[in-house]
Amino acid sequence: MSAAALGPGAEFDLIRRLTDGLVAPAGVTVGTGDDGACLEGGWVISTDLTLEDVHFRRSWCGPEEWGGRAVRAALSDLAAMAARPVAILLSLAGSADDRASGVLQAVGQGARAAAESLGAAVIGGDVTRSPARVAIDVVVLGRTDDPLLRRGARPGDDLWVTGHLGGAGAAVRMLLDGRRPPPPLEARFARPQPRLAEALWLADTGHLTAGLDLSDGLAGDATHLAAASEVGLEIDESALPVDPHAVEAFGASTALRLALSGGEDYELLLAADPALAAHREGFGDRFPGVPLTRIGRVVAGSGVSLRAPDGERRPAPSAFDHFPDSGSPPS
Amino acid sequence: MSAAALGPGAEFDLIRRLTDGLVAPAGVTVGTGDDGACLEGGWVISTDLTLEDVHFRRSWCGPEEWGGRAVRAALSDLAAMAARPVAILLSLAGSADDRASGVLQAVGQGARAAAESLGAAVIGGDVTRSPARVAIDVVVLGRTDDPLLRRGARPGDDLWVTGHLGGAGAAVRMLLDGRRPPPPLEARFARPQPRLAEALWLADTGHLTAGLDLSDGLAGDATHLAAASEVGLEIDESALPVDPHAVEAFGASTALRLALSGGEDYELLLAADPALAAHREGFGDRFPGVPLTRIGRVVAGSGVSLRAPDGERRPAPSAFDHFPDSGSPPS
Repeated sequence: MSAAALGPGAEFDLIRRLTDGLVAPAGVTVGTGDDGACLEGGWVISTDLTLEDVHFRRSWCGPEEWGGRAVRAALSDLAAMAARPVAILLSLAGSADDRASGVLQAVGQGARAAAESLGAAVIGGDVTRSPARVAIDVVVLGRTDDPLLRRGARPGDDLWVTGHLGGAGAAVRMLLDGRRPPPPLEARFARPQPRLAEALWLADTGHLTAGLDLSDGLAGDATHLAAASEVGLEIDESALPVDPHAVEAFGASTALRLALSGGEDYELLLAADPALAAHREGFGDRFPGVPLTRIGRVVAGSGVSLRAPDGERRPAPSAFDHFPDSGSPPS
Repeated sequence: MSAAALGPGAEFDLIRRLTDGLVAPAGVTVGTGDDGACLEGGWVISTDLTLEDVHFRRSWCGPEEWGGRAVRAALSDLAAMAARPVAILLSLAGSADDRASGVLQAVGQGARAAAESLGAAVIGGDVTRSPARVAIDVVVLGRTDDPLLRRGARPGDDLWVTGHLGGAGAAVRMLLDGRRPPPPLEARFARPQPRLAEALWLADTGHLTAGLDLSDGLAGDATHLAAASEVGLEIDESALPVDPHAVEAFGASTALRLALSGGEDYELLLAADPALAAHREGFGDRFPGVPLTRIGRVVAGSGVSLRAPDGERRPAPSAFDHFPDSGSPPS
């Protein structure tokens, strides 16, 4: 099996300790450090734990959307590996009140509807009581004979992203301020669109060399791709497809920062050989409304550097850290 | 795929709604309603969410044991299907304080140590912040070419259980009363022993017809086996291997009730054709200290009936319900 390197961060230090020195079990072809694990038979598996008051707040959207969002975010890990969704296992926890009032049932219905709309059946379920807040764990199962990994990017490759960046972060910032985001931004948070069909289409071109999905923010997530591929990444800030609604709400400078560090966009960061560029128009025809943008390049070296519009280079800011040194909760 | 029927209970009503009318995805050979799902390639997968103040309290044991217990309980689902453990995916959530003080790291170390001691590597990990309490999700991956299912029991089969019953329930009751359980009972709660090797050995005899693990209590869990196999089960109360330490702590009558409804023993309930009896001595030689006890029989009909020592029959009491109608928290 492959154990890919992770970028810096307290969260990843702990993950590293959990898997440090791991001996490969037979049948596991890709293990720790990627978006999912790969098993003999072409299976890809990943798990994602969503907690109330960490990943969402009760007032931000409805319980169907808590469940749907958890499923959509989890399925994004299959998009990251260019795997076709097959099924999910769903664990729900909620208080006796949430059970009695139907809130927990609505979470489950939203999760099931989202899974089925994206081609995954709910093949296992577990429901348990929680002391207070809702918790949702989603295990996703997909299939591919040729998983897209975080390692594989080579100097000379281009860097691409799907969709717009910063919209989910802008929505969260407005919600934290007690404001209702405009519908397009609210949708970016409440109903993220895992790029499953897009990933399969792009993988079919044969030009992708590495990829991952953007859950913690482009700047930080890119460090994982750089570390796993043992390359450097150069990103042009002026090329980033910043969400226009985020720009409208917060101005260009803040929107750029949200695009780099806001997290939860669930778009794809891809490395590809230069020939992918010739498929950009075909992608646009197939996926109208989903831009495919070249944002930089893969170079020899390590780490991620950003090139500002004035040409100045600086190291990438860190991604969302679940345990920031300041100790203050991020949301 | 197979969708096995579940026994009665509010928890299972909600699970049924999540999976009702499910269309079988290709590649999934056994789905909802069993201890795990089975995938082409011989994989068995299950997920188990453990929450502080529901499945354990902070004062009851150390953080290594919170993690270890979560993994042991999750791996018991592989024992239930007579699958060999291969790997786990581990999701941890804890407060910033638990991260800073090393508590979350200890949970992870305990989880990893338990997994490795039982033959499973940690091939994926995820760490996130929680508002307050610790949450642990464990996805287990095992392999078998011939999974033991809940369906398959036939009238004329015998019913067997491994180990002693009621010990974990007795420990929880003492802990809830603010008493420290004696070491053998504490171990039953803090370090349950999933019957992985025992299940493989027994499956190899070729005589098992159905099985599951006892997480919610024998009486309730048995209803799932009866429903899935479309048979009735008769259990002789006088035959139950009640934990002697539970009898010592609470007397025979309460200990029997804990054996029937206490939950979390993580022993196996098995149906087998009558020829299994000839292997009982071999089992005892191979697994000293783990009794294998015939506790009843499979009959035509439905449901579970208990035969009291005086010969009187009564329907089985319900298992631990995560959402009892009274609305009062069970622990």
